[in-house]
Amino acid sequence: MSDLHSEQSTATQPRPVGVTVPQGFSVASTTAHIKPSGKPDMALLRNDGPDFHAAAMFTRNKVTASPVRLTQSHHNGQFKAVIVNAGNANACNGAQGDKDAATTANHVAQALGIDTEDVAVCSTGLIGDVLPMEKVLAGVDALVPQLSSDVEAGGPAAEAIMTTDTVSKQAVYQGDGWSIGAMGKGVGMLAPSLATMLVFITTDAKLASPEAAQKALSASTATTFDCVDVDGSTSTNDTVLLLASGASGVTPDEEEFQRAIHQVCLDIAMQLQADAEGVTKRVSITVEGAATDAEAKEAARVIGRDNLFKCAMFGSDPNWGRVLAAVGMAPVEMEAEKISVSFNGSPVCINSTGAPNAREVDLTGTDIAVTVDLGTGKGGTATVWTTDLSYAYVEINSEYST
Amino acid sequence: MSDLHSEQSTATQPRPVGVTVPQGFSVASTTAHIKPSGKPDMALLRNDGPDFHAAAMFTRNKVTASPVRLTQSHHNGQFKAVIVNAGNANACNGAQGDKDAATTANHVAQALGIDTEDVAVCSTGLIGDVLPMEKVLAGVDALVPQLSSDVEAGGPAAEAIMTTDTVSKQAVYQGDGWSIGAMGKGVGMLAPSLATMLVFITTDAKLASPEAAQKALSASTATTFDCVDVDGSTSTNDTVLLLASGASGVTPDEEEFQRAIHQVCLDIAMQLQADAEGVTKRVSITVEGAATDAEAKEAARVIGRDNLFKCAMFGSDPNWGRVLAAVGMAPVEMEAEKISVSFNGSPVCINSTGAPNAREVDLTGTDIAVTVDLGTGKGGTATVWTTDLSYAYVEINSEYST
Repeated sequence: MSDLHSEQSTATQPRPVGVTVPQGFSVASTTAHIKPSGKPDMALLRNDGPDFHAAAMFTRNKVTASPVRLTQSHHNGQFKAVIVNAGNANACNGAQGDKDAATTANHVAQALGIDTEDVAVCSTGLIGDVLPMEKVLAGVDALVPQLSSDVEAGGPAAEAIMTTDTVSKQAVYQGDGWSIGAMGKGVGMLAPSLATMLVFITTDAKLASPEAAQKALSASTATTFDCVDVDGSTSTNDTVLLLASGASGVTPDEEEFQRAIHQVCLDIAMQLQADAEGVTKRVSITVEGAATDAEAKEAARVIGRDNLFKCAMFGSDPNWGRVLAAVGMAPVEMEAEKISVSFNGSPVCINSTGAPNAREVDLTGTDIAVTVDLGTGKGGTATVWTTDLSYAYVEINSEYST
Repeated sequence: MSDLHSEQSTATQPRPVGVTVPQGFSVASTTAHIKPSGKPDMALLRNDGPDFHAAAMFTRNKVTASPVRLTQSHHNGQFKAVIVNAGNANACNGAQGDKDAATTANHVAQALGIDTEDVAVCSTGLIGDVLPMEKVLAGVDALVPQLSSDVEAGGPAAEAIMTTDTVSKQAVYQGDGWSIGAMGKGVGMLAPSLATMLVFITTDAKLASPEAAQKALSASTATTFDCVDVDGSTSTNDTVLLLASGASGVTPDEEEFQRAIHQVCLDIAMQLQADAEGVTKRVSITVEGAATDAEAKEAARVIGRDNLFKCAMFGSDPNWGRVLAAVGMAPVEMEAEKISVSFNGSPVCINSTGAPNAREVDLTGTDIAVTVDLGTGKGGTATVWTTDLSYAYVEINSEYST
């Protein structure tokens, strides 16, 4: 028996969620006063073993933050601890930034009695401000004695890694004698300059190797986090980590494990989309009839990034012409005269021509499903999740950075 | 003696501008009631010879409007007339749209006593509504007897092709015994769904061949219209036409002609940028230190399309971190640790690290010049012109299409 349960569900008996649901993990959070708001802003996650397998996905941006470069250099399939701060991205700080990320990792390693290479460092916040190291190191000192494997400890940690998130994000998957937990924050459009997606996934499944973890994570992010595209912006700090403790002693079927990791990633991804800054509509764009799945994803992404389309969604306007104008610029195979579009299941464009009553389709609800068939007759398909472009998006993202 | 003069200049003795400044051209405009506003909405431009050389550039969108496909099929280096309607794009209307564009061209050809293949058809307006052919054909009948080579006739024509433009756009170049005139409308972000750039350039220069015209036009559009990128959206109807009558009998130096066409294109392009819907800032993005000019243009375009960057410009926020985060996603060669950025000439980021007082740079003016050096040490450079992302943009583009 296995099922997916996210924090946002409203079961009468709320089941535990988060990174300490799986056995073999401890977590702590604290207020280090990096955030001007005085809210909790640091978290420490420790894998207590017996295994220390780790898989990771990092931002594809060529401009990477110091903690990303440090964590990449440490990453060899094993992490024992992850230190996270919110409120400062430690990005574009040059050699000082690199030094500060390394100092943080060293301090954590010493405090936990582990190797520096076994520490991952993640930061999220404003780009270009030097990390307040006195606060960060004091934060580490405060975190270590608070480490707890209590199932309730995940919640405060999920809050401590938030930046402009309005709700914390956690998820869980209960397998047969093993489980997966997760926490995440943000998605790429956050106010002011706080544009980072951080996701931490824990499992007590007994995996054969770090490669097994990486395989499941890579496959899952390709169709979940990589398909959430709120404004096309990609952070310098994006990081997804999967840590496997093996503490359950149970080795799940490979296919089930893969499916479970995908479910947890999708759950967190949907929470990120729903909490995107300024969002008034959740918009899914499914492209079918593409030459390949990759081309379908590319076409869906081009539509999802088109500002004219996004404004139409904000206005609940079934303006299908903007979908055609947008998708026509996608560098993929299509039959320009055979494109069909539906909004929430109602055909609005058939063979690149308007369908009867297309302009009367009701898009006033919060969720809009757009389906586009590229007309190649081939089976490539993919879904990208985006949002509308609202006044609030402009308001939040035009506020002064200082 | 030659100089550039745009309509927006305020010389005490306003010199004539527009498509009938060069000899050998007639123009007319009328109200055909295609626009619901009842404003003028059709124009006819005729080349009276003796030459009929024509060059053309069309949208790169795979989804093209019927008039674009018709004009492309007619284009063999010669056009004698251009018929334009505003208020309806005749895009995504299937076989009916193709038929209507052809009927329009035939009607113009018969009325003028020329071949159908010598007629170019351009439409701009809402996508997906069938063209009201009775009104269009009556409009043609009204236009033909009004054709005038009067130098003042260009102004009303420039107004008749407007959609949501707030001012008409014309330009002129005076060579030694020859000249260039132009009118244009719109740029790709226009309300609701009116997203088309149409530009018509006339010259009485005596050119050796249509190829000479095409060479000058292609080179000029690459660094002018192709570099105005307001929201990344590309219309189904974009068309730029250059008609050469040879009526002056003067053959300009090839280099001067090329430079003159470039000046006129740049003049119209800047007018398009300045009149973009919802614009509160004119933003130029110059990328230097790229491997090639093409890579510089690609990088500048990626920055110019980044919504977080555009919101920061709206907020007069010198948030250079967003420039680095944006450019890091450009698929071009760069030295990620050696990127430098300046705003209005003030360095804000040097070698990918914040410059002193970077957050104090004043961006409250209407014009913002962003310069980015990619640090490759090579000489590739390009400029892209964009705008900020404002409340007004969202307002205009979220209004209902019907």
